Amino acid sequence: MFKLLQMMISSSSTTSLSSSSTSIILTNRIKFQQQQRGLFLISNSFSNNSPFHLSFASYPTRKLTRCLTSLTRMSSTQSDSNSVAPSSSTPSISSVNIRKVKFCQSCGGPTKHEIPDGDEKLRAICTLCGNIAYQNPKMVVGCLIEHEKKILLCKRNIQPSYGRWTLPAGYMEMGESAAEGAIRETQEEAGAEVEVVSPFAQLDIPLIGQTYVIFLAKLKTPQFSPGVESMECRLFALDEIPFDSLAFSSMVVTLKMYIEDLKDGKPKFHYGTINKRPGTSPSDINAFTLDYHLAMS
Amino acid sequence: MFKLLQMMISSSSTTSLSSSSTSIILTNRIKFQQQQRGLFLISNSFSNNSPFHLSFASYPTRKLTRCLTSLTRMSSTQSDSNSVAPSSSTPSISSVNIRKVKFCQSCGGPTKHEIPDGDEKLRAICTLCGNIAYQNPKMVVGCLIEHEKKILLCKRNIQPSYGRWTLPAGYMEMGESAAEGAIRETQEEAGAEVEVVSPFAQLDIPLIGQTYVIFLAKLKTPQFSPGVESMECRLFALDEIPFDSLAFSSMVVTLKMYIEDLKDGKPKFHYGTINKRPGTSPSDINAFTLDYHLAMS
Repeated sequence: MFKLLQMMISSSSTTSLSSSSTSIILTNRIKFQQQQRGLFLISNSFSNNSPFHLSFASYPTRKLTRCLTSLTRMSSTQSDSNSVAPSSSTPSISSVNIRKVKFCQSCGGPTKHEIPDGDEKLRAICTLCGNIAYQNPKMVVGCLIEHEKKILLCKRNIQPSYGRWTLPAGYMEMGESAAEGAIRETQEEAGAEVEVVSPFAQLDIPLIGQTYVIFLAKLKTPQFSPGVESMECRLFALDEIPFDSLAFSSMVVTLKMYIEDLKDGKPKFHYGTINKRPGTSPSDINAFTLDYHLAMS
Repeated sequence: MFKLLQMMISSSSTTSLSSSSTSIILTNRIKFQQQQRGLFLISNSFSNNSPFHLSFASYPTRKLTRCLTSLTRMSSTQSDSNSVAPSSSTPSISSVNIRKVKFCQSCGGPTKHEIPDGDEKLRAICTLCGNIAYQNPKMVVGCLIEHEKKILLCKRNIQPSYGRWTLPAGYMEMGESAAEGAIRETQEEAGAEVEVVSPFAQLDIPLIGQTYVIFLAKLKTPQFSPGVESMECRLFALDEIPFDSLAFSSMVVTLKMYIEDLKDGKPKFHYGTINKRPGTSPSDINAFTLDYHLAMS
């Protein structure tokens, strides 16, 4: 019923494609056969085993002041609930982060860490009032802005990935839609007024509890200027995109998808899961596998 | 560049469509002109002014035990961080919920509620360690399962919306992808083993800080049975779907989109924002406006 088209990502390393009967493995848990409807899997591994040199996860942040605060905290206690910074060898981000919840937000009582009856996940449970502190993945929303066949990128003025290039993106806030959040982040980081053209990609990163939602967008006026979180904003031709200096794996995937879509002439909506390769640094932006990728034109 | 197709939802009330120059208003904040690429806006209001009779927001829950615990808490203190239960007249769910954060999860210190320097949102800030308790929208992931031209629905055995019908869906957990979460929830609520066919819809509900991500899926085997959260699971022909007895507005939108797609013969990926009508109950599933809807085939 749906027309699902093949999407290839240019890579110097292995890219395997299959169509008629593709075995899809979902993050160590679910394996199933996808046999119909022209569904395609792209397992894509990039090799770049740079040494571990940053302890930060590949996550965007909100505001400069908050980012700097987070940076300080993460360097010491990693206690910020909005800052997930796992080692890539961490088996479960949820079990690590939940143990940082030591007190109840409602009554201040100390927590215990147990799997509640009828549940399967470790939770922080208040020993006084019984409140359970659930933790859920966060959505990162951003814009891929096309302008005169170029893409607007921001050079980060903050950690993590200071000095590296990214699409404008950040955490979705309460009370806004994903499109609103993407527009807001673009205004904050690139000083640009944009309008959303279409959804482009949803990329889950289970290891760090994030889901990227990227929209195609265009400038309402041709002005842009770096916000406090950016040291520079620049339009890049497609063959000039600094892939070796991108900030996050999600940006590598998004931009390569976009370039391939343009080559194919049939832009699509993409859903996929980015799994970092075991034993690699979160800052190693090419050390991932795009294990599960549905491209829909 | 993208082929974005018009999508109509059957409704007894107003449906406005425009294509060449559509003014899109994003939730009281952002207004812009959408003029190109065949983009369509569907503003769709359903009228059903039933009296306010439930104080619960239209949100799915996780497990029976947790749901019952939440129910108790929500009836009294509404202190569960995973249970958003605003009045529909609440101007901002974020400002309401953040005031419930009275203590720091890290050190147990009392919080103050202020807008930090460089920020725009009210936050709960620990007066002892300075930790900021960020709150972000949660993702609800679920499956729209087609089987022999029928749709699998679950009759809820829990509050909210006890006794009403829903697609199997629930909160995405840390450490899983959206597709994995949708498959897991389907197994838990409908006892069904499914495989995901394609992404179908992303529906933001800013008022309650939720984003629904719905996948089209199919049964791997024709067996299903109600889990503890469901009192019944049943396949419904399209003309038998109990629209008056659905659990959540998101289900009304998803199922009407799906039916219209089938009529159109061109199934799509949908992005939209569900805004509840001011002054109506969260449990009034038809009291909403689908203000911003992009349908992509």
